[in-house]
Amino acid sequence: MSSLRAEIIAIGDELTHGRVQDSNSAYIARELEPLGLEVRRITVASDDPEVLDRTFAEVCARADLVIASGGIGPTEDDRSRHSAAAAAGVELEFREECWQQITAWFEKRGKQATASNRRQALLPVGAVALDNLWGTAPGFRLVVGACTLFLFPGVPREMRRMLSHHLVPWVNAELRGLQPMAFHHMLVVGPGEAELNDRIAEFMRHDREPRVGVTAKEGMLTICIAARAVNQEAAREQCLATAASLRTILAQDLVAEGEDDLLALVGKELRQQGVSFALAESCTGGMLSSALIGLPGISEVYRAGYVSYSNAAKERDLAVPADLLATAGAVSEAVAGAMAKGCAERAEARLGLGISGIAGPGGGTRERPVGTVCFGLNLDGQTETWQKRFPDLGREYIRSRSVLEVLVALHRKLAGSSAGS
Amino acid sequence: MSSLRAEIIAIGDELTHGRVQDSNSAYIARELEPLGLEVRRITVASDDPEVLDRTFAEVCARADLVIASGGIGPTEDDRSRHSAAAAAGVELEFREECWQQITAWFEKRGKQATASNRRQALLPVGAVALDNLWGTAPGFRLVVGACTLFLFPGVPREMRRMLSHHLVPWVNAELRGLQPMAFHHMLVVGPGEAELNDRIAEFMRHDREPRVGVTAKEGMLTICIAARAVNQEAAREQCLATAASLRTILAQDLVAEGEDDLLALVGKELRQQGVSFALAESCTGGMLSSALIGLPGISEVYRAGYVSYSNAAKERDLAVPADLLATAGAVSEAVAGAMAKGCAERAEARLGLGISGIAGPGGGTRERPVGTVCFGLNLDGQTETWQKRFPDLGREYIRSRSVLEVLVALHRKLAGSSAGS
Repeated sequence: MSSLRAEIIAIGDELTHGRVQDSNSAYIARELEPLGLEVRRITVASDDPEVLDRTFAEVCARADLVIASGGIGPTEDDRSRHSAAAAAGVELEFREECWQQITAWFEKRGKQATASNRRQALLPVGAVALDNLWGTAPGFRLVVGACTLFLFPGVPREMRRMLSHHLVPWVNAELRGLQPMAFHHMLVVGPGEAELNDRIAEFMRHDREPRVGVTAKEGMLTICIAARAVNQEAAREQCLATAASLRTILAQDLVAEGEDDLLALVGKELRQQGVSFALAESCTGGMLSSALIGLPGISEVYRAGYVSYSNAAKERDLAVPADLLATAGAVSEAVAGAMAKGCAERAEARLGLGISGIAGPGGGTRERPVGTVCFGLNLDGQTETWQKRFPDLGREYIRSRSVLEVLVALHRKLAGSSAGS
Repeated sequence: MSSLRAEIIAIGDELTHGRVQDSNSAYIARELEPLGLEVRRITVASDDPEVLDRTFAEVCARADLVIASGGIGPTEDDRSRHSAAAAAGVELEFREECWQQITAWFEKRGKQATASNRRQALLPVGAVALDNLWGTAPGFRLVVGACTLFLFPGVPREMRRMLSHHLVPWVNAELRGLQPMAFHHMLVVGPGEAELNDRIAEFMRHDREPRVGVTAKEGMLTICIAARAVNQEAAREQCLATAASLRTILAQDLVAEGEDDLLALVGKELRQQGVSFALAESCTGGMLSSALIGLPGISEVYRAGYVSYSNAAKERDLAVPADLLATAGAVSEAVAGAMAKGCAERAEARLGLGISGIAGPGGGTRERPVGTVCFGLNLDGQTETWQKRFPDLGREYIRSRSVLEVLVALHRKLAGSSAGS
């Protein structure tokens, strides 16, 4: 990987107190990687002047490039510019041109800059001001010893725009020779994290290139292959070579490839193949529906969703036979299948999906403990059913694990299928 | 605040690469504050052995208490235990009792611990093992010079349980003399963050006690009052005194108090007042339903949910008149009201809610731009409708903002109401 040491600093009591989650740093790290910069450390510092001074001094002393966000607002506790100046051993100076922009920004919005906004025109001597066309506070670039420090506002919307507007061009112009990176994702469902590691251990060794990492989230394992080469194409080829070897090892546990978002992939498949669908959810309670409707354009194929949490709703809205509910029970493959068929027919959709399970904390029995979830899939009149027993890791886990189960089943059903096309 | 220096370390390439956002550290910081511990720095470190070694060494050298999470899984790149041992200048040793628990955990789930799971039974010499009843990897407590280091798994649900199970009791037992803190939350909807800041600026000054902070999330502003005193009661009284002064300033913008979770509050009100309800969602697509069904026990009052994204579904499932859809349009107060009435009647519920809006990116018109959302509320046969024009900050923002709007309306409707009781 790059020998250039890049670090990130995020500033604010709201972050160190945990009232707000630091989303800027993850965003900055993602933006830096394609530029050939790998972030190895992120520091979140409170507004406390002593902590802030030490953080800027320590990080700038060990890194070549530092991207900091936050603490340049108009209020008393915004002290990032002071700590940056202190780290560089320079004073702050009032920049008339910055003040002009700040006042102009307010006037454009029919407002008046206040006295406290004047603080935002204070920059370290020698700093290059970076226009902020999206808010009041300008950022700046400052040389601190052997390190180059960028300071941006903490407001994500402003920081993100200034990043692409000011940082990216500078990196491309100043840091030539960095090798670009390419990534390749493989989605795996089935084995546990440890089991997967045993199977691909040799690829995950730290000294090995391309890098192979695994992250687990609600039953889904995402393998990320990261390669660095003279150009994007070469890096991509290295990724694909490693992917080819992993493919044979993963076999049928490999759900999807070249994608790190199964939901978006399934949505694309449903639309491209013109598979109209309807949903009948019990324990997931609309979670699957809400996830799919989060995809723009899904209305082309989304017909209707039913949250039939009660037996009455299952009978009334999905035409699930009362005697079936009585004999098989609400949480049974038979009922899940009837729910899938019922919603497809009612909504006149090609595909119907039924989910009925026990998400807990209550409701479990010896035969059907919490975590038991039954699934039904009805495509063009043909019904399949299956059930899973997920570990009882909490109501939210069981519900989102159930949604994942359906997405995997849908992808397997639709991938390479020529349905409707 | 306390003079005791507490810091947090979060470990993992997925965090420093920005593929996953570090949620553990914010959670840990929030848990530490009521114990009297204020976090002033959070370090996110990659799995790179050199970075990890330096991070543990540096942080433990300057802090009194360090809570680290991540990097103790079974995989090759899990090296936190090595770096912790290095910082303390001790070796790793295989703990038979830990290995027993790991194998037992797998057997209980009808699985087998693998060779790489044995890594998870490696602990620094002198470390106190901390049972993990919710996953495979045990954590540990280790003395590193003048600092006490806790290392927990990175899996949030395991880390959270181990935190309350192992850390909280230890802090209470070992770190007496710290003044306890109390918190009081006030939920505000209406003013923007800047406007609210101006209105309560004097309370937010950094030198002022109790501390008053504001965080904004999808239109909801949460005021957090934090006080420290000789005992919890005294601290709570200080919070309430400040809350009393804020109440008069906030007036009708104050939605709820003493709660930081509006969703749970509304769920409690629905259950306690025995208000059976049904939902008819269009643009939110089941998001409101899924949120409510996330609340254990809600099935007592939840009757049915309908995601009527298409006009056909609105007519068929909610009996919305076709001519009304034609004349008023799908996104209109009239249709939202008809949806609320339709789902309540169909599901035989006392309360019906209808949401119909334009979440974008497409579908906006001059009269009804993206962000226009219409709401209908039908309680015991009486229908109310209203509409909002939310800023177009993206599909997800508009959808979750719409869910918040309904929760606020429901709370205002139910708070203090004696319906059904």
